Amino acid sequence: MTGFGVFCRPGEEPRVGFRAGDDVLDLSALGDEFAAPSLNAFMAAGPIAWEHALARIEAGEGRAVPLAEVELKRPFEVADYVDFYSSLEHATNMGRMFRPDAEPLLPNWRHLPVGYHGRAGTVVVSGTPVRRPRGQARPPDAEAPVFGPSKRLDIELELGFVVGVPSRFGEPVHGERFDEHVFGVVLVNDWSARDIQGWEYQPLGPFLGKSFATSISAWVTPLSLLREARVPRPPQDPEPLPYLRIDGDWSLAVELEVELNGAVVSRTNSRGLYWSMPQQLAHATVNGACVRTGDLMASGTISGPERGSEGSLIELTGNGAEPVELRDGRRAFLEDGDEVVLRGRAGDVELGEVRGRIEAAA
Amino acid sequence: MTGFGVFCRPGEEPRVGFRAGDDVLDLSALGDEFAAPSLNAFMAAGPIAWEHALARIEAGEGRAVPLAEVELKRPFEVADYVDFYSSLEHATNMGRMFRPDAEPLLPNWRHLPVGYHGRAGTVVVSGTPVRRPRGQARPPDAEAPVFGPSKRLDIELELGFVVGVPSRFGEPVHGERFDEHVFGVVLVNDWSARDIQGWEYQPLGPFLGKSFATSISAWVTPLSLLREARVPRPPQDPEPLPYLRIDGDWSLAVELEVELNGAVVSRTNSRGLYWSMPQQLAHATVNGACVRTGDLMASGTISGPERGSEGSLIELTGNGAEPVELRDGRRAFLEDGDEVVLRGRAGDVELGEVRGRIEAAA
Repeated sequence: MTGFGVFCRPGEEPRVGFRAGDDVLDLSALGDEFAAPSLNAFMAAGPIAWEHALARIEAGEGRAVPLAEVELKRPFEVADYVDFYSSLEHATNMGRMFRPDAEPLLPNWRHLPVGYHGRAGTVVVSGTPVRRPRGQARPPDAEAPVFGPSKRLDIELELGFVVGVPSRFGEPVHGERFDEHVFGVVLVNDWSARDIQGWEYQPLGPFLGKSFATSISAWVTPLSLLREARVPRPPQDPEPLPYLRIDGDWSLAVELEVELNGAVVSRTNSRGLYWSMPQQLAHATVNGACVRTGDLMASGTISGPERGSEGSLIELTGNGAEPVELRDGRRAFLEDGDEVVLRGRAGDVELGEVRGRIEAAA
Repeated sequence: MTGFGVFCRPGEEPRVGFRAGDDVLDLSALGDEFAAPSLNAFMAAGPIAWEHALARIEAGEGRAVPLAEVELKRPFEVADYVDFYSSLEHATNMGRMFRPDAEPLLPNWRHLPVGYHGRAGTVVVSGTPVRRPRGQARPPDAEAPVFGPSKRLDIELELGFVVGVPSRFGEPVHGERFDEHVFGVVLVNDWSARDIQGWEYQPLGPFLGKSFATSISAWVTPLSLLREARVPRPPQDPEPLPYLRIDGDWSLAVELEVELNGAVVSRTNSRGLYWSMPQQLAHATVNGACVRTGDLMASGTISGPERGSEGSLIELTGNGAEPVELRDGRRAFLEDGDEVVLRGRAGDVELGEVRGRIEAAA
């Protein structure tokens, strides 16, 4: 089992399908919301409709089509894309590299799930080639910035949740209502040009260092298929403010790996994330901001405490000082032609992979 | 003359109109793209279609409806919302307040138009009430953050441009092609909760301090109506990198004012903005990020060099130390019930106003 996505066969319109092993179940005969080029209408229909669809699939409905015969599309129209920074280990690693003389965690980090808005219009489906971005960067010791292809192109391994049922403008969504609004999860590769990001990001945050592309899996795994993966959140100290205190086990134990040119370079697990998805949703809406069908909220890079469990090359390689070893050479950052695959599994449920190959700059 | 918008009369479907004085010209009979609830299809049709529509309006087509009889809708579906930081005076003022012991401008500011992504899903049309956001803030000298309604609710006076014709993923848009892609401009009030923003914004930029609401005018003024307002850009030192060198006069001389509870508290002009709109577009896409129909890119707060020409209360009041005087009292920041109106005029062309009243927190 994997999840829902959008596919098409040559000469046919895109439609909704459910991945089952090496087949896609064509659901387009099950209703108008499935004979559509995105999951948005189905996701907006809410939890009862989601469960009903899963029950019909379980009962054998849907026409099997070999996966090898179809083209996979981006599964939903992305409304807003928010990226959090919810791994304590990642935030600590980044703080040590970027602010070596200061406390690695900024004072706000343990009080709220830090996050920002990314570019929804460049969220692409797994398999889409990613062109190396060009941009401004200021090399160490240089007086002025230079322009050119990024020399420090990186990945970020993330898990994202997708909103189905919208909320109302001006009304916060309590974290307890997480599963009334959220349809499912995707794997996310938040491609990052570290040199562009390093020069641009003060004081308003990342912009062009991230906005060239964000890849998501072709399959959205519904929350209800992940019930057995739900585990207690790691302890939080200090205790967060009341709006961030949410009952229930909502951390997801998903085994994750990063493959670079065929070699696994990182293995980690999302169960260790400091901030949970319901906390992220509660925080993002506590000011009255509404969510819409197709909102994508990603975890931020998932890094564990051990060597080899970091979710980005900049962490895995100690800011490039200790390249990872591959069969075809060593990598501090990504080279043209490199292919990255992110994978995730929770028990019997395999999430859709996120695959992307780097093309040379224009 | 003002521009294109979307309106409806009781019992009728929303449709495209053109504001002409105290009337709206109902354009729905002119084609399918006008019998639509947003400008998106018309904006996507490109410059020839835009000119053709203006010529038909000039020739007397469209049925006049009194403005007083219609409800105005958000004129377009916002794809991505980017907010820049393009006023030298504003960036300097903010730097002095937030980093009093350092150079007010960060090293990157004169090399690139600093910007970030805002929340597209909470962009609302002029007239929409704005509920005071609640959130975390850490008062000066406090050990821990507190939660509650924002105590430092502010405005930001901005001018934004709206993309009509999309670009291709992976391909930068040269600044010379600005008017092949950009349909027109709106006034923008980028409401800002300074206390929430101040606590949350490091290291990834503003999030909840801005995302509760952004108001835009109900009318999008096409670029072609603003030809006479185009003036040379202020000098830039150092000379920007080649991709940001763009010929042609693209600064817009728009006289702007901020009215608070009936009193004008600021008068300024967008002609002084350091970074021009074509430079903003070239920068936002130089990494290969595509633009989509409905992308909104705003200038950032427009402040002039004189006292009383600042585009935010935090600047007008010296971080609250010198409140502005109104007929009904003094204001450091916005109180519940306050109404703000932004206005803009370029010669004979009046931009649509942006009006918003503050409602008490939930």
